Amino acid sequence: MSTKTAAAHSSTSESVGRTTAAQYRRVRAFSEKIADSLAAEDCVIQSMPDVSPMRWHLAHTTWFFETFVLKAHKDYQVYDERFDFLFNSYYNTVGDQFPRDQRGLLSRPTVDQIFEYRRHVDDHLIALLRSRDITAGEISVVNLGLNHEQQHQELMLTDIKHVLSCNPLHPVYCESPIVASHGAAGGGSVSFDNGLYHVGHDGEGFAYDNESPRHQVYLEPFRLDSRLVTASQYLDFINDDGYATSRWWLSIGWQTVRDERWNAPLYWHQIDGEWFHFTLAGLQPIDPHAPVCHISYFEADAFARWAGGRLPTESEWEVASSRVPVEGPFADQLVDAGLCVHPSAQADSTDPESLTQTRDGIGLSQMFGTTWQWTSSPYTAYPGYAPPDGALGEYNGKFMCGQFVLRGGSCATPSDHVRRTYRNFFPPSARWQFSGMRLAHDLE
Amino acid sequence: MSTKTAAAHSSTSESVGRTTAAQYRRVRAFSEKIADSLAAEDCVIQSMPDVSPMRWHLAHTTWFFETFVLKAHKDYQVYDERFDFLFNSYYNTVGDQFPRDQRGLLSRPTVDQIFEYRRHVDDHLIALLRSRDITAGEISVVNLGLNHEQQHQELMLTDIKHVLSCNPLHPVYCESPIVASHGAAGGGSVSFDNGLYHVGHDGEGFAYDNESPRHQVYLEPFRLDSRLVTASQYLDFINDDGYATSRWWLSIGWQTVRDERWNAPLYWHQIDGEWFHFTLAGLQPIDPHAPVCHISYFEADAFARWAGGRLPTESEWEVASSRVPVEGPFADQLVDAGLCVHPSAQADSTDPESLTQTRDGIGLSQMFGTTWQWTSSPYTAYPGYAPPDGALGEYNGKFMCGQFVLRGGSCATPSDHVRRTYRNFFPPSARWQFSGMRLAHDLE
Amino acid sequence: MSTKTAAAHSSTSESVGRTTAAQYRRVRAFSEKIADSLAAEDCVIQSMPDVSPMRWHLAHTTWFFETFVLKAHKDYQVYDERFDFLFNSYYNTVGDQFPRDQRGLLSRPTVDQIFEYRRHVDDHLIALLRSRDITAGEISVVNLGLNHEQQHQELMLTDIKHVLSCNPLHPVYCESPIVASHGAAGGGSVSFDNGLYHVGHDGEGFAYDNESPRHQVYLEPFRLDSRLVTASQYLDFINDDGYATSRWWLSIGWQTVRDERWNAPLYWHQIDGEWFHFTLAGLQPIDPHAPVCHISYFEADAFARWAGGRLPTESEWEVASSRVPVEGPFADQLVDAGLCVHPSAQADSTDPESLTQTRDGIGLSQMFGTTWQWTSSPYTAYPGYAPPDGALGEYNGKFMCGQFVLRGGSCATPSDHVRRTYRNFFPPSARWQFSGMRLAHDLE
Amino acid sequence: MSTKTAAAHSSTSESVGRTTAAQYRRVRAFSEKIADSLAAEDCVIQSMPDVSPMRWHLAHTTWFFETFVLKAHKDYQVYDERFDFLFNSYYNTVGDQFPRDQRGLLSRPTVDQIFEYRRHVDDHLIALLRSRDITAGEISVVNLGLNHEQQHQELMLTDIKHVLSCNPLHPVYCESPIVASHGAAGGGSVSFDNGLYHVGHDGEGFAYDNESPRHQVYLEPFRLDSRLVTASQYLDFINDDGYATSRWWLSIGWQTVRDERWNAPLYWHQIDGEWFHFTLAGLQPIDPHAPVCHISYFEADAFARWAGGRLPTESEWEVASSRVPVEGPFADQLVDAGLCVHPSAQADSTDPESLTQTRDGIGLSQMFGTTWQWTSSPYTAYPGYAPPDGALGEYNGKFMCGQFVLRGGSCATPSDHVRRTYRNFFPPSARWQFSGMRLAHDLE
Repeated sequence: MSTKTAAAHSSTSESVGRTTAAQYRRVRAFSEKIADSLAAEDCVIQSMPDVSPMRWHLAHTTWFFETFVLKAHKDYQVYDERFDFLFNSYYNTVGDQFPRDQRGLLSRPTVDQIFEYRRHVDDHLIALLRSRDITAGEISVVNLGLNHEQQHQELMLTDIKHVLSCNPLHPVYCESPIVASHGAAGGGSVSFDNGLYHVGHDGEGFAYDNESPRHQVYLEPFRLDSRLVTASQYLDFINDDGYATSRWWLSIGWQTVRDERWNAPLYWHQIDGEWFHFTLAGLQPIDPHAPVCHISYFEADAFARWAGGRLPTESEWEVASSRVPVEGPFADQLVDAGLCVHPSAQADSTDPESLTQTRDGIGLSQMFGTTWQWTSSPYTAYPGYAPPDGALGEYNGKFMCGQFVLRGGSCATPSDHVRRTYRNFFPPSARWQFSGMRLAHDLE
Repeated sequence: MSTKTAAAHSSTSESVGRTTAAQYRRVRAFSEKIADSLAAEDCVIQSMPDVSPMRWHLAHTTWFFETFVLKAHKDYQVYDERFDFLFNSYYNTVGDQFPRDQRGLLSRPTVDQIFEYRRHVDDHLIALLRSRDITAGEISVVNLGLNHEQQHQELMLTDIKHVLSCNPLHPVYCESPIVASHGAAGGGSVSFDNGLYHVGHDGEGFAYDNESPRHQVYLEPFRLDSRLVTASQYLDFINDDGYATSRWWLSIGWQTVRDERWNAPLYWHQIDGEWFHFTLAGLQPIDPHAPVCHISYFEADAFARWAGGRLPTESEWEVASSRVPVEGPFADQLVDAGLCVHPSAQADSTDPESLTQTRDGIGLSQMFGTTWQWTSSPYTAYPGYAPPDGALGEYNGKFMCGQFVLRGGSCATPSDHVRRTYRNFFPPSARWQFSGMRLAHDLE
Repeated sequence: MSTKTAAAHSSTSESVGRTTAAQYRRVRAFSEKIADSLAAEDCVIQSMPDVSPMRWHLAHTTWFFETFVLKAHKDYQVYDERFDFLFNSYYNTVGDQFPRDQRGLLSRPTVDQIFEYRRHVDDHLIALLRSRDITAGEISVVNLGLNHEQQHQELMLTDIKHVLSCNPLHPVYCESPIVASHGAAGGGSVSFDNGLYHVGHDGEGFAYDNESPRHQVYLEPFRLDSRLVTASQYLDFINDDGYATSRWWLSIGWQTVRDERWNAPLYWHQIDGEWFHFTLAGLQPIDPHAPVCHISYFEADAFARWAGGRLPTESEWEVASSRVPVEGPFADQLVDAGLCVHPSAQADSTDPESLTQTRDGIGLSQMFGTTWQWTSSPYTAYPGYAPPDGALGEYNGKFMCGQFVLRGGSCATPSDHVRRTYRNFFPPSARWQFSGMRLAHDLE
Repeated sequence: MSTKTAAAHSSTSESVGRTTAAQYRRVRAFSEKIADSLAAEDCVIQSMPDVSPMRWHLAHTTWFFETFVLKAHKDYQVYDERFDFLFNSYYNTVGDQFPRDQRGLLSRPTVDQIFEYRRHVDDHLIALLRSRDITAGEISVVNLGLNHEQQHQELMLTDIKHVLSCNPLHPVYCESPIVASHGAAGGGSVSFDNGLYHVGHDGEGFAYDNESPRHQVYLEPFRLDSRLVTASQYLDFINDDGYATSRWWLSIGWQTVRDERWNAPLYWHQIDGEWFHFTLAGLQPIDPHAPVCHISYFEADAFARWAGGRLPTESEWEVASSRVPVEGPFADQLVDAGLCVHPSAQADSTDPESLTQTRDGIGLSQMFGTTWQWTSSPYTAYPGYAPPDGALGEYNGKFMCGQFVLRGGSCATPSDHVRRTYRNFFPPSARWQFSGMRLAHDLE
């Protein structure tokens, strides 16, 4: 590289660095906003092994930047050597980790001390982003770190919801009411032809490694429902003894239903014959027009079989999604507006004009930012997939077993974190995410 | 249907019935041959939840014919009403089942009494197959029952191996030595072009529902190794600290390795620095040229990553298999010849002429009847798959979660039970089947 | 010792040896008689960790004689070195043991092979007992071994009952009916003064180490009920919601009731409103006049509290028992007479003359050989207790924690094995022994 | 009762009420002092099922007064009806309880809110104590409540120690150093004659129900060591492979050692060959002259066997203790003096004059307020014991199973809470209390 080019490059990096610094401030601030209304006591609890305490999220996301960006700089003074053990999540390449299911045993560093840690890392990172030394590679890792933090922001919301839900006092995280829905428009579905389609990330903008390589899949013709399955539809399944009828269920799902005594989605409670659910705004009546959420893959799959449909594959979902713009509102917008993070029926059901029109005269709605949508696709590597070298290669690839792909983002996903090719994944029994479903159908 | 056609039809059925009766006798006899050398005590034990006692296998396969064929006949007298509860495996449609993981708590009916039960059902079933009343539908269910029994014959062999392996006396099931190998020919691999391929059962002959519908898949170009991974290759992985190096492993696989303290395939024991393994012929030295077997998906996947390859998808495997004839020897032939059921290196390694030639001058060997070959494909429904109605719809579909597909059959599979489109499936931690692996590679 | 005395001693030993040989034959034969009516399959099963398979009992009792008597003789050829690992129960001093809770994983040696092992050891042991070489020390260990085998004979009966009870076919061990009772005489109780009493073995005849030293205890005045609590009385407790009322229960007992969903004694089943129980003669209606048995300490203690009484201490029981002769019938007599081993109401309820008369005009009945009687005494060392040196010191002392003492022997105890000072002990949750209860009361 | 007497009585009650009010203030203040140096985060964690979070202790002790004293007053307004479910420990008579092992799932009410709850109850309770309405019965329950709170004060200290010990940062609860010891004086022991002794509470002052009735026991002659077993002596046991030698251990203790991989007392860590232990002052080197503590009954019993002694019975301990005054320092004094709560060797080892002289010229030291001393006595009812009626009858009696008695109080016990007849009890595997041991010996 000639000196001139290098200078130009450096100058570009500097400019990108400054843009990234702004983005960094914005993303980091949202994490702290999420924690803002909590008591210190709330931030300690790990209500089940899948959940991490708020204080851990706040520290771990900070440790990520410190470890993968700052530590490479010789003059950077590590904040506390012992944090590697405490706040490394699963990077075996970096070192041993405090047992994941025991994160709720720790009270120190306290929340205030973790905020100090955040300040320290933020100061150094922003200084670096503004310096001439910043490299494109580093900016790329900072971007990964920001996406990583956004991923944790969704977990902060779903984890604190789970934590608070364990308390018989039904604590309220945000006072805002959930807007009542105005009645849902009719359903309908959209058809797609068979053929070879391209799926996977095309290289524009940020994406995780697991969204690549872009590749071809052959699809049979299929139909996708215009909207998500609603609480009302799901209640029909419940009332038709869905949870007591083995034929709708996968064998291991049926086992789970009986072992866990499931009889409704997570957070649903029947009180004097009425259905309520625990939300971030406390205990609330079920809105029949809102999408059902907090269901497992097992429940989504069983409901689909009962309803005479099926779950879409992730390829089908992605192909279909290309007809629809990525539109919110998303988690950060909701929180900014003082609204409860919860999927709502309102917008699209009352305004048919808001639907993207397709060839059969009706569009797909609620594709993005409402509930995660279970697909029938186990989470596997795309053909030719190879994880990056080093510790960051542990980010995605090693989880490709025993999980199913969800698509579309939820109301708890921050806006920059929703995209068509995004592959979320959870075990089939997981229910504490904002996970719902949309039906697909075979076409003859 | 006119009387004449009906008569012709009946006559055809009668003829098919007689053929089926012969097949029935042959298959049923092999189950009893498997149990022949065992003590009554051996037939009671359930050494882990996945294993069923021999007496249960002998009874359950009989109950299958009684329940799905004989009971439909009004004049058939059920042998013992209580057997529905004892010997139903997982057909919720039929009724409740004695808990699967408690099958080892039962000693009655005794083995002798179960043989009497087999006689009773055999007599009635053969009488039915020879009668004019037999229908095509019934013959079809009998055929399903025979395939079902063959599936259990493999389990009888793998289950009794597991049972005996728990005994520090290392009991010998069959005295026959395992033939020593004569050295393996060099490796090599076979390349395949990208393109749209058809996979799934084409309708000729028997197949399970999960092998249909036949459908198209788009494959990227790939290479498949000519032979299975050998014990010798696997030892290199072990000696390179494969079981102690987290980077080769899926996250849940690594967890399993540590929880279960795995450091070698199931049945392997290191004694004074030498490797032995427990076989149906007792404790034997490892043959380095024989295919490695009794490995889990986790181990197959980790080995592949270490070796710089990957597991094939089930589509890749099936497409490749079309170049190779389905050839044994299989379990029944081995047992008839007094040979130990164990994968051997011998035949193909010494006679390169036996390899099917392909366009690149080298063929694929050990595709069938040696070890089951783990694929990277989670076990899911083919596009358009629908299970049959009724209890038999529970045969396959409800297990499509959390399992991986294995292909090719093993030395413990009876001959009629091996075919190109056959989809075996087990959880990724399962090791007690004769499960091994073959490497695939991406092509640029 | 002078030659003359030595000769006399030897002659005495020889004589005692011959007597012991006869006793040996008799005791050993009864073990085999117990197994006589069983199928080989029955002898394999370990239905819960506390239960051992019949084949294990038959081998372990034999191993005891081989290990602690025969192996000390240089010219004795050990039958199979590997049996040490398989058939050692808990003697760490002797060596490692096959895991106790996995005894049901073993089918070899088979029952027939274990009978051969018994023959081998019997032949050598009887030869030794008849030889001039036999020492008083050896005779003492043989006597311990015979008591040990008798202890296992009771376990064989209670273990096989538990094994068979798991089978929904309700297999019958012995066809003999349980004799119906003729109605129970009224209750009554016997009073005892306060004072210092001696308890513990006085040195006459065989006793286990834990029955010594004989020592003094101070007792407050107390009353002991004349008879055991009956099924009828226990039903009153059940019908008064005894199992649903926390106040009667110890905290850990209440936890157990809820965890295990206990609502009646072990083996009791309510069928169409009638109470039945599983016995060695199969499923039988409850005899209301028979003593309740198969209850835990928790149940005995809760019943006592509900009934306004309490359990006696073991000292109270032993002091009281001195007024009553040790009379059967016992297990060997029942089996010889072709009777089912089960506590019965008959003898004492119809013949009041059979009761031992005491100063207050009514006696104590059912003190021996009916059901084991829970006492309120945790199993601890007597003052000054010290276990013997060597492996046999592990016989009793190391279990003095977490168990309660039962007294009196049961219908499943062989006759020589019942005595006043005998201390049986089981954890408070154990129910599979023939364990019942008798009430005591404070006296003002 | 005449008016005059009633007035006198009332007047007496009033006076006692005022005294009790002062005592109430003092005891309640100490609980809050214990929590004073903690972060809110520390107060949430339940590090094992036996541990309760600090916030729970603070609320539960308050709930006790509200429930058993204030609620009986019609005009008392319950602070929050829902606290019955949250803060009831185990009084089934009062109602259901939030699951004990899930107390760490709750963050609300927060610590601050719980302090408000304390204020509310304190205000009402003190007003009641000062009023004319106060009855002797109420004062008695208040006294029980104060003893109850003192019991919890010890648990607050031992629980927070356990909580903090889980954190690899080794947080420091109090900065005060543990005073180094000045070398221990020689050992020695004190002999006691056989005979009938009285034990149990004699009715003077407060005692729990389980300390009554006072009754006679017959003791054989015995010797009791003058001082507690030291860390140095215990290290000899460790270094003699005590944790690897089965013969010293009870069977269930040996099982526990292997299951839990115990190789030293709780909180002990060997770092580079040196022994440290976690204390409330952080990680500290072991003081060899200090009493060993944080050992289970299993370890105390095994050490005693190894050392050729035994544990005393609780009667022996109580009889011996009558020769020694109840002297501290105790928990409240330590905390007031800014000292770490930890047993120390100092006082008695340097000043032999401080020892109580007995007939054989040497006294018993460290009998009170140092470490709890395991006795060999299972926790059972004294002869004639009956729990009080109502909910408070659940205080002690229902735990009389599966636990062993400890005597003497520890450095974590508040001063008023130590007395000769006090019977503490824990399961034999418990180690998180300040539990140590003193040897007893049989006398010939």
